[in-house]
Amino acid sequence: MATILKGAPVVAAMNEANAARCAALKARGVTPTLAVVRVGARPDDLSYEKGVLTRCGKVGVEVKQFLLPEDAAQEQLLDVIAQVNADPAIHGCLLFRPLPKQFDDRTIRAALAPEKDIDGITDGSLAGVFTNSAIGYPPCTAQACLEILKYYQVPLSGKRAVVVGRSLVVGKPAAMMLDRENATVTLCNSRTRNLPALCQEADVVVVAMGKQGAIGGEHLRAGQVVVDVGIHVNAEGKLCGDVRFDEAEPLVEAVTPVPGGVGTVTTSVLVGHVVEAAEKALG
Amino acid sequence: MATILKGAPVVAAMNEANAARCAALKARGVTPTLAVVRVGARPDDLSYEKGVLTRCGKVGVEVKQFLLPEDAAQEQLLDVIAQVNADPAIHGCLLFRPLPKQFDDRTIRAALAPEKDIDGITDGSLAGVFTNSAIGYPPCTAQACLEILKYYQVPLSGKRAVVVGRSLVVGKPAAMMLDRENATVTLCNSRTRNLPALCQEADVVVVAMGKQGAIGGEHLRAGQVVVDVGIHVNAEGKLCGDVRFDEAEPLVEAVTPVPGGVGTVTTSVLVGHVVEAAEKALG
Repeated sequence: MATILKGAPVVAAMNEANAARCAALKARGVTPTLAVVRVGARPDDLSYEKGVLTRCGKVGVEVKQFLLPEDAAQEQLLDVIAQVNADPAIHGCLLFRPLPKQFDDRTIRAALAPEKDIDGITDGSLAGVFTNSAIGYPPCTAQACLEILKYYQVPLSGKRAVVVGRSLVVGKPAAMMLDRENATVTLCNSRTRNLPALCQEADVVVVAMGKQGAIGGEHLRAGQVVVDVGIHVNAEGKLCGDVRFDEAEPLVEAVTPVPGGVGTVTTSVLVGHVVEAAEKALG
Repeated sequence: MATILKGAPVVAAMNEANAARCAALKARGVTPTLAVVRVGARPDDLSYEKGVLTRCGKVGVEVKQFLLPEDAAQEQLLDVIAQVNADPAIHGCLLFRPLPKQFDDRTIRAALAPEKDIDGITDGSLAGVFTNSAIGYPPCTAQACLEILKYYQVPLSGKRAVVVGRSLVVGKPAAMMLDRENATVTLCNSRTRNLPALCQEADVVVVAMGKQGAIGGEHLRAGQVVVDVGIHVNAEGKLCGDVRFDEAEPLVEAVTPVPGGVGTVTTSVLVGHVVEAAEKALG
């Protein structure tokens, strides 16, 4: 029977710390402020935005919304980003992507000032993750994996970590952040041969494939810690992950649930980045 | 008896291609030009510079030297970099590092325009390597490893690669470039446990530890391809690598020699970047 690495206590601890830092900033006359920039109204975006607004409200981060119609022109969005960059009262910016087709993703990302890029979408933030330096902020979901591992005091230094999936939003930055903790990291991709045996070598397995139930008993063994980044709706209409939880749970030492795992921690990471950006802006 | 993956034929092929591209650029009125910026006169720098000058001369790349005394001020070097950035006749810049103590490395690196950063020292170049996008250029030694593997048609897709050493000059960028070729890459560091067994799992082992003779028979097996990035002078005054060549050679399928391996390819990569930068500048 595995320990279930629930997100809730991680979130509670992060919220408490963020709220205290927010209060300290307000005492110095600064209200940490997040710009939410959304084009159109995709249900996924709206749902995530709702979570961000709630979380921000609880810890004392102010939110300014910038909403553009789905058929907005690239220039309009660039204007909004320029406004966000120029406003010293805005400390961080969440920009929903993927953007509609009329936008050039690269141009838009490049327009955002890295110091306000609290969601790790600029090249500055990604260089920061790769070089382990304080430019921008890592992608929130990747950092959420690390926050869970740290909160539950999972040893990483000298341990084998396998990251399955190499997206720039999760897999690659998570691999770099595990390396930063002195884990020996293997980054797997869709061409990887004998994935089950490779996963079994790991002390920590981070699964970010975006494939429902792709990882199960044949990939896992006793003593492992499994972090499941996937989120899907199964045939019964229930939320589930990339890991077959019913197979993992009796086998491994610890596993994050879906729902209630990595996903719940992501917004707290985001809010923490806004607070940090406000602290940095204050100097 | 391993195949010796000598640098010489790789260099010959690259020089031929670079010379042809140079000639094509000159026919369009452009002479690919490299700025070499050196502070002081360290013997290592002078030796590398000599190699670069020779290689550039052979393929038709022009070199402009900017030499500063060892006690130059940071402002002087920043002025030189600004001059390099602003000069459309200069396509790439090689800046020798480490710099003397009075310089702030981060500030200096940030000053160079990524499009002229043919040696992969800017955050732009490193973001490019991490995100697999066309910003700047990868560090030359890391790319030299890949050039050798490609020249000798070593299969990488779906193969296991182990990179030992995680510097930003070789290990980490080499890991990203192997991932780009769809290898399954494990990045090892000084805390890695059971390195011999881990290395033996790999089809391709890239050794960039900077430790003379650290990798030997106990780390290797039949069928492997070994790339040795290390370069040291042994007790007999001879050049040698991180790999104990006498143990590797009878055991593995192929191995790069030291000297005559990775190091010889590095300047060709550098010159190739200058040519590419000139092509890009021409549009």
